[in-house]
Amino acid sequence: MNPIIAMEYSDDRLRLVDQRRLPGAYETFECRTWRDCVFAIKDMVVRGAPAIGAAAAYGAALAALEYSALGAPEFGPAMRAALGELRRARPTAVNLMWAVDRMAAALDASLGLGPGRAAYERLKAEADAVLADETDRSERIAEYGAALVPDGAVILTHCNTGSLAVPGPGTALGIIKAAHRAGKGVSVYADETRPRLQGARLTAWELDREGVPVTLIADSVAATLMRDGKISLVVVGADRIAANGDAANKIGTFMLSALAERYGVPFYVAAPVSTIDFGCPSGDAIAIEERSPDEVTTIEGVRVAPAGVRVYNPAFDVTPAGNITAIVTERGVIRPPYGPAIAALRPGAGEGTL
Amino acid sequence: MNPIIAMEYSDDRLRLVDQRRLPGAYETFECRTWRDCVFAIKDMVVRGAPAIGAAAAYGAALAALEYSALGAPEFGPAMRAALGELRRARPTAVNLMWAVDRMAAALDASLGLGPGRAAYERLKAEADAVLADETDRSERIAEYGAALVPDGAVILTHCNTGSLAVPGPGTALGIIKAAHRAGKGVSVYADETRPRLQGARLTAWELDREGVPVTLIADSVAATLMRDGKISLVVVGADRIAANGDAANKIGTFMLSALAERYGVPFYVAAPVSTIDFGCPSGDAIAIEERSPDEVTTIEGVRVAPAGVRVYNPAFDVTPAGNITAIVTERGVIRPPYGPAIAALRPGAGEGTL
Repeated sequence: MNPIIAMEYSDDRLRLVDQRRLPGAYETFECRTWRDCVFAIKDMVVRGAPAIGAAAAYGAALAALEYSALGAPEFGPAMRAALGELRRARPTAVNLMWAVDRMAAALDASLGLGPGRAAYERLKAEADAVLADETDRSERIAEYGAALVPDGAVILTHCNTGSLAVPGPGTALGIIKAAHRAGKGVSVYADETRPRLQGARLTAWELDREGVPVTLIADSVAATLMRDGKISLVVVGADRIAANGDAANKIGTFMLSALAERYGVPFYVAAPVSTIDFGCPSGDAIAIEERSPDEVTTIEGVRVAPAGVRVYNPAFDVTPAGNITAIVTERGVIRPPYGPAIAALRPGAGEGTL
Repeated sequence: MNPIIAMEYSDDRLRLVDQRRLPGAYETFECRTWRDCVFAIKDMVVRGAPAIGAAAAYGAALAALEYSALGAPEFGPAMRAALGELRRARPTAVNLMWAVDRMAAALDASLGLGPGRAAYERLKAEADAVLADETDRSERIAEYGAALVPDGAVILTHCNTGSLAVPGPGTALGIIKAAHRAGKGVSVYADETRPRLQGARLTAWELDREGVPVTLIADSVAATLMRDGKISLVVVGADRIAANGDAANKIGTFMLSALAERYGVPFYVAAPVSTIDFGCPSGDAIAIEERSPDEVTTIEGVRVAPAGVRVYNPAFDVTPAGNITAIVTERGVIRPPYGPAIAALRPGAGEGTL
C-alpha cells in the first residue's frame, strides 16, 4: 500500500487526512482558505507539532491568495491579522510559531512584489519549503534510527509519531517503518496511550496500513513484556529535550523508560534538533501541562468515571537522560554524556552531520 | 454517608447493587429466583470473587425455596441441576466453586428434612454464614492492614477491591477505608485500570462516597508520582497467590510493583487466605487468562482502534514475591521469606492468628 501522505497542496488548496475520523474513516479535509487552516489546527484535523507548522505555512499562502485583489495598503495588515490567527490556533506548539515566523519573514521579503499572484506564489514556495524541510528531517531520522534496529526486532512504541504527526515517515514510527522497508522483519507492540488513545486510534492504524505487524496493548501490559524479554527495544518521540538530554514526551513515556532501564531494554528517543530547548538546563525546568479531566473521565462522550471526581491528567512526563540509550536526530545519533553532544548541535556550533 | 452494602438478603430475595450501571446510576438489582442469580453473576451485575460466591450461595437458597413444593424424589435432582448452573456461571472464580460446594454439603445435610420451608431455611442460614464469613474476613484484613498505614499517607491503588467486590469493607480498599475511619487523614490515587476501567468506574465512586479524598489517574501516571516521592505506599488485591508469595492480580499490578521496588515505595498485597493456592509453587505456574480484544478496541460499544487489529489482552500479571513488602490476610500480616510464612497458613498447619 502507498505510504500515507497526510498533507498535500495543489490547485490552490491544502488537503489533510482528517485525523478526527481515524481509525473509523480515512477521509480528506480540504482547506480552501486560511480560516479553514485555523479550524483544522484548532479542531485537531491535523495534529503533531511538525504537521501543524506546515499546515499553518500553507494557511499563510492561502491568505496571500485571498487578499491578492486588495490594494497594497490593505494587503500587509490583512496578512498580519491572518498570520496572528494562525499563530494562536494552538497555544503550545513551538513548530507552529516557527513556521508562522518563517512565513512572516517571507512575507516581508515579498512585500515589494505587492499583492497579487506573485506574492502568493512566493509564499506558496516558502510553505513548500517548510514541508520539504520537515519531510527531509524525518527521512533522515528514520534512516539514522533504522541502523540501530536489529533484524527481527520486537519494538515497543508509545503515542503516535508517524506520517500523521510529521511530514515524511515520522520520528519514532519513521524509524520503525524504515527498518521494516529495509527488510529487517520487525514487529511492533503499540501502547494504546491513555488518555487520548493515539496508539490505538492512529499508530495501530498507520502500521497496519504500512504492512508492519502490530499488536495493540493497554499501557500497563508493557511491564510484563519487558521483564519477560519480549521487547528488543523501545523507541518514542519527544516534545521537548533539555540541554542535559532529559526528554519530555507523552505521559507514560517515563514509565516505559524506567522499566526499560530496570530490565536492560535499549530505549531510544527520536526527534528533530528543533525539539531541543538549548536554554532549558534539565527536565526539572520543563513545566508539565495539565489537560482537561474530561480526557480521563469521558471517552467518545461517554462518561466512565463519577461526575465531579478529582483527576490528575498531566499531558507529558519527563524521562531522565540516564534512562535514554541514544537520541536520534536528523543530524545523527547522539549518546551519553548528552551535555556536550547536545551543545555541539546548538545553532552556531557548526552545521552538518555529527 | 452509610457504608456501601452491595448485597442484602431479606423477604426471600437477594438485592445487589447493579455494578453494570455504576458510576452513572446507583441501582438495586433484585434476584427473586436462582436463575436471576445465575444471570447476575454471568452478566456482571455482581463481580469480585468473594461477592460472586456469596451471591451463588443465596442462589442455592432461592432454589430450595422454588422447589419446596416438589416431592422428595424430584427435589434432590432439581437442586443439583440448579447448583450446577450456579457453579458454571463464571468459569474461573475459585470462591464461586467453594461457595457452591459448601451449599451442596449443606443440602446433603438437610435432605433428611425433605423439601419445604425447613430445607430452605437451612440453606438460607448457610448462605448467611457464607456472607458473614466473607464479611468477617474482609473486616480483619482491613484492620490488620490499616495498622500498616502511616498518618497522612498518600496511597496508590489499582482496580476495585472494595465493598462491591467483597462482602464487608473489601481487601485493599478495605484497608484504605479503615485507615480513613481511624482518622489517619489518608488520600488516594486510583488508577483507572485499563482495559475495563474498574478504578474509574468503581473505586473512584466508592471512595468518593465514603468520603476518602481520591484522585483518578491514567495507569501510566503512577510512575512519575512514585519517582517524585508523592506515594507513601501501594496496596492492591490478589486473584491468586503462589506458595512462594508470587501474586497474580489485575493487569498493571506488576508494573506498579516494579516501579515501587525501583523507587523504594512499600508495596502491600491484601487477600484472604482462600486466595493462596498452596499447590502452586510459583508465579511461573500461574496461567494468565487472555480476554477478548474488544475490551481494548471498544469502549462502551464505541470502536477506538482499527477493525481487525491484533490485540494482546492479558487479564492478569504476576508480581514476584521479591517486589512485595508484606501480604495482609485475615489471619495477620506475613512478610518475606514468604515460603515458610505461607506454609504456616496451610489448612491443617494450625489455625488462629499468626
